[in-house]
Amino acid sequence: MPLIHVELVEGRTTEQKKKLGEAITKAAMDIVNVPKDAVKVIFVDMKKDNYMEGGIMRSERK
Amino acid sequence: MPLIHVELVEGRTTEQKKKLGEAITKAAMDIVNVPKDAVKVIFVDMKKDNYMEGGIMRSERK
Amino acid sequence: MPLIHVELVEGRTTEQKKKLGEAITKAAMDIVNVPKDAVKVIFVDMKKDNYMEGGIMRSERK
Amino acid sequence: MPLIHVELVEGRTTEQKKKLGEAITKAAMDIVNVPKDAVKVIFVDMKKDNYMEGGIMRSERK
Amino acid sequence: MPLIHVELVEGRTTEQKKKLGEAITKAAMDIVNVPKDAVKVIFVDMKKDNYMEGGIMRSERK
Amino acid sequence: MPLIHVELVEGRTTEQKKKLGEAITKAAMDIVNVPKDAVKVIFVDMKKDNYMEGGIMRSERK
Repeated sequence: MPLIHVELVEGRTTEQKKKLGEAITKAAMDIVNVPKDAVKVIFVDMKKDNYMEGGIMRSERK
Repeated sequence: MPLIHVELVEGRTTEQKKKLGEAITKAAMDIVNVPKDAVKVIFVDMKKDNYMEGGIMRSERK
Repeated sequence: MPLIHVELVEGRTTEQKKKLGEAITKAAMDIVNVPKDAVKVIFVDMKKDNYMEGGIMRSERK
Repeated sequence: MPLIHVELVEGRTTEQKKKLGEAITKAAMDIVNVPKDAVKVIFVDMKKDNYMEGGIMRSERK
Repeated sequence: MPLIHVELVEGRTTEQKKKLGEAITKAAMDIVNVPKDAVKVIFVDMKKDNYMEGGIMRSERK
Repeated sequence: MPLIHVELVEGRTTEQKKKLGEAITKAAMDIVNVPKDAVKVIFVDMKKDNYMEGGIMRSERK
């Protein structure tokens, strides 16, 4: 606790996820006062043909 | 908003997901009065050996 | 299966959810060929001060 | 996209959630290069008797 | 890790959730070889008019 | 109902998931009094570079 799920369209690097996870972990520690070990960040990769916004699949967006 | 996650056992085509996502988007627009762009539909593919119903893995169902 | 989670900002009526759930159930039956009983729709109400978009809590949007 | 769900044990203030959501939004913009409006943060409050860690309900933790 | 979300229609007691969480924790320890402290179980209460199965809201089931 | 999502870091066998799913199904039947067919268990595999705990990606843990 906290448990933080981050859903991202595929294409981000492990390096980007690592930096984002570290920033989120630090923000949680500072703002809601939880110990570092308590923060879990789970990244979920969405394929471009599994994410639709406004009726348009991300894989078909121009 | 709304955010709609659709978990499906693997095997559906992108075409089927596209049609289902469009139907859900239209229903949300018409019934809960949200603009088209606001509707997000996320498809989640479940492998047949990751989905158990009534104690039986889908991969073992006859 | 399918399992469909619909996250909505609070304020919709049970009647609206019922109509939306019925439309989603019918679309799933017709498009991905599942029996009616197999379709589960779970509505999740988000409070306006639990949903942030573009850095703005929904409760503070003008 | 990204969609970020933050599950927290109850007791945080709206002010804390607002600050945490803003920090997460900024981190996502800077690190994975998404426009501000695209970032959605959903807070999920867990009651203390709905969260178990190591076999102990949070409501019974000493 | 593991993170286990249990969605239940409202009406179960805290005592039932506690027993179920303990049984799940023990099963995870024994079968996937994780330390007790690593197992998190999150209960999610669904209202009867937020859960639809086969096109019927649970609140309207006879 | 109940719907139970089990998030595990990759590396467990189908046999382990099957046993864990069966144990969870039995516990749900016995403790919250639901019929066997009603219990759904969904396993979600997390890659080691998609799971961060205490600011450390699982793939980098020593």
